[in-house]
Amino acid sequence: MLPPPNGIVTTLTDYGVDDPYVGILKGAVLKGHRRAQVVDLCHAVPAQDVEVGAFFLGAARGRFPDGTVHVGVVDPGVGTSRGVLAVLASGCYWIGPDNGLLDAVLADPSAEVLAVDLDAVGIEPESRTFHGRDVFGPVAGLLAGGRFGFRALGRRTAEPIRLAPDPTPRVLFADRFGNLITNVSQDAFGERLCGARVGGLEVELVGTYAESPGTAPVALWNSYRTLEIAVASGSAAAELGVGRGAPVELLLGTS
Amino acid sequence: MLPPPNGIVTTLTDYGVDDPYVGILKGAVLKGHRRAQVVDLCHAVPAQDVEVGAFFLGAARGRFPDGTVHVGVVDPGVGTSRGVLAVLASGCYWIGPDNGLLDAVLADPSAEVLAVDLDAVGIEPESRTFHGRDVFGPVAGLLAGGRFGFRALGRRTAEPIRLAPDPTPRVLFADRFGNLITNVSQDAFGERLCGARVGGLEVELVGTYAESPGTAPVALWNSYRTLEIAVASGSAAAELGVGRGAPVELLLGTS
Amino acid sequence: MLPPPNGIVTTLTDYGVDDPYVGILKGAVLKGHRRAQVVDLCHAVPAQDVEVGAFFLGAARGRFPDGTVHVGVVDPGVGTSRGVLAVLASGCYWIGPDNGLLDAVLADPSAEVLAVDLDAVGIEPESRTFHGRDVFGPVAGLLAGGRFGFRALGRRTAEPIRLAPDPTPRVLFADRFGNLITNVSQDAFGERLCGARVGGLEVELVGTYAESPGTAPVALWNSYRTLEIAVASGSAAAELGVGRGAPVELLLGTS
Repeated sequence: MLPPPNGIVTTLTDYGVDDPYVGILKGAVLKGHRRAQVVDLCHAVPAQDVEVGAFFLGAARGRFPDGTVHVGVVDPGVGTSRGVLAVLASGCYWIGPDNGLLDAVLADPSAEVLAVDLDAVGIEPESRTFHGRDVFGPVAGLLAGGRFGFRALGRRTAEPIRLAPDPTPRVLFADRFGNLITNVSQDAFGERLCGARVGGLEVELVGTYAESPGTAPVALWNSYRTLEIAVASGSAAAELGVGRGAPVELLLGTS
Repeated sequence: MLPPPNGIVTTLTDYGVDDPYVGILKGAVLKGHRRAQVVDLCHAVPAQDVEVGAFFLGAARGRFPDGTVHVGVVDPGVGTSRGVLAVLASGCYWIGPDNGLLDAVLADPSAEVLAVDLDAVGIEPESRTFHGRDVFGPVAGLLAGGRFGFRALGRRTAEPIRLAPDPTPRVLFADRFGNLITNVSQDAFGERLCGARVGGLEVELVGTYAESPGTAPVALWNSYRTLEIAVASGSAAAELGVGRGAPVELLLGTS
Repeated sequence: MLPPPNGIVTTLTDYGVDDPYVGILKGAVLKGHRRAQVVDLCHAVPAQDVEVGAFFLGAARGRFPDGTVHVGVVDPGVGTSRGVLAVLASGCYWIGPDNGLLDAVLADPSAEVLAVDLDAVGIEPESRTFHGRDVFGPVAGLLAGGRFGFRALGRRTAEPIRLAPDPTPRVLFADRFGNLITNVSQDAFGERLCGARVGGLEVELVGTYAESPGTAPVALWNSYRTLEIAVASGSAAAELGVGRGAPVELLLGTS
């Protein structure tokens, strides 16, 4: 039993908001479903950074009502022959390029994965540069508005492109506050971790930002359920002098 | 007679828009009320700056239809025991931490102020770091969607935390154009002010930006109903070399 | 037969998103039509840059469902006596100041152009500084919600202010990726162009970003249907050391 589309469409891109690209993507969704409610998930994915895009999309799993359509566009291969995916996972629909961007939802073993057949749904890209407008937005609009059921979008595919698994603990990105978001999973290490070493400094694991006294960096499990290095009233990135890709050494205890 | 919630929910945070946090906050609202229309008020409040957040929230008073739910999250005490407020004022509902962020609406003597009882509304925070998603968004969704009436959210409280009153005239912040927004109220000084002295320079009061010739800074009453120092085609902040907190000397005349 | 307003209202401004101005503009729309769906087109038009604003608004033509109301506010003359326009073109409605901002839609010979009569629609600006909130948002709300039909907004005018035509090929602006967006129209030169010279360098015309090898800049027809200079995994602006206003020399072939 497929969850009925609920009219909500979220958008994630690396377009930024300095141009009208995101607005025009939303127009493409609305042309497919005039009553869609289009919500920004994030448009500040670093340019062409499929890995961070996949992480941000994964953070939306379970966070919207069932039947939401999530559209992701981080698409270095725009205009080439890379495929288009539609996925049903976590009660929601996920539309994006077949380049690893949907990796976090593809990790769900019960995910249903389709290769979208653009001919079958009547979509012919007008450009080779703006498939948010020409492909991904329209597919989302058709699905959200019920013009095509999920399974009418294409055929099941068993080999969507996945990101290379990378178990090395490291900094994924620094957020606006200078907090360092790592790829260290709470589910894997939550029981055993008592601290970490980053940028040559040992940081203690605490429960919340407010427990970080002064400018000493601390580690905590964040709302993404990954390890984060933070300074309560400052920037851990500046304090430790590290950024994306910096290695994180885990300090494990006996719990 | 309480204004019926109208389905509109505005959001104000210090999250910025470089991450999916704002999007996930909206998801939490939509999980409580699938048909809510979620509108950005502002997400560029300086990090943890409750005072500027309060000023921005105050600027929304009277600017949305009655029954709008406004959610504010600038929350240095996230994960501690600080309370959660729900306020009815100016025909709208206001949800936020009990830390002074709602100060501008609490200034309304007819405001009805509740301490939200999270147990009573069935909200148990999943994290100690992201109460926009875990607490404030869900409360707004429950209220906007009518699952809880306003007075079912908690008990009246007589002692919400207020900001320290600060009558010293000064620059609150510089906006994107370099205009200096001050805390000098038009209601208090509109009749008597003929100019101001900022950054060592005397600036004349004019009626609108277009009356500012060349690069000479001028003062004017802005749309927040406070005094603003501006340069028509430039940045007053750069011209005068001042920013947040800079003192403003009022030049009063006999009107 | 006029297209019925469909409830969607897009907004384009030079307000940026560091302040609550855009949110309050949306509140003004919603006060006129509580059920409007307000969509951001772009709020990063360079301050008071009517030309770039007009280009961005033009990019929305044909990109939203018929009956959408587009509001544009880039308004150096705010608070003076400049007029207010309402235009019907490309199946949609366009509201903005009479200062050239609507130039791209006024170029449509079948456009119907009205000078809005604020008295007739009962709008009296509350400020001389924030006509997005006081004038343009309210007009859009009244139209989107059906309180006033398009032709009840004012009288036809034959002389809206237009931008000076500028056939000189040049860079209009650099986008977030450093791509250089030019004013060279695909419709005019698409058949004949084989390359361009920008910043002293000759760049070849290719079909899509992915055809740009390494860091060599290339030219391509973009989704605005204008010529764009790009570097596949870098910034053409940085690579060529040019920005807004830089001249573009067209290399024409015999096709």
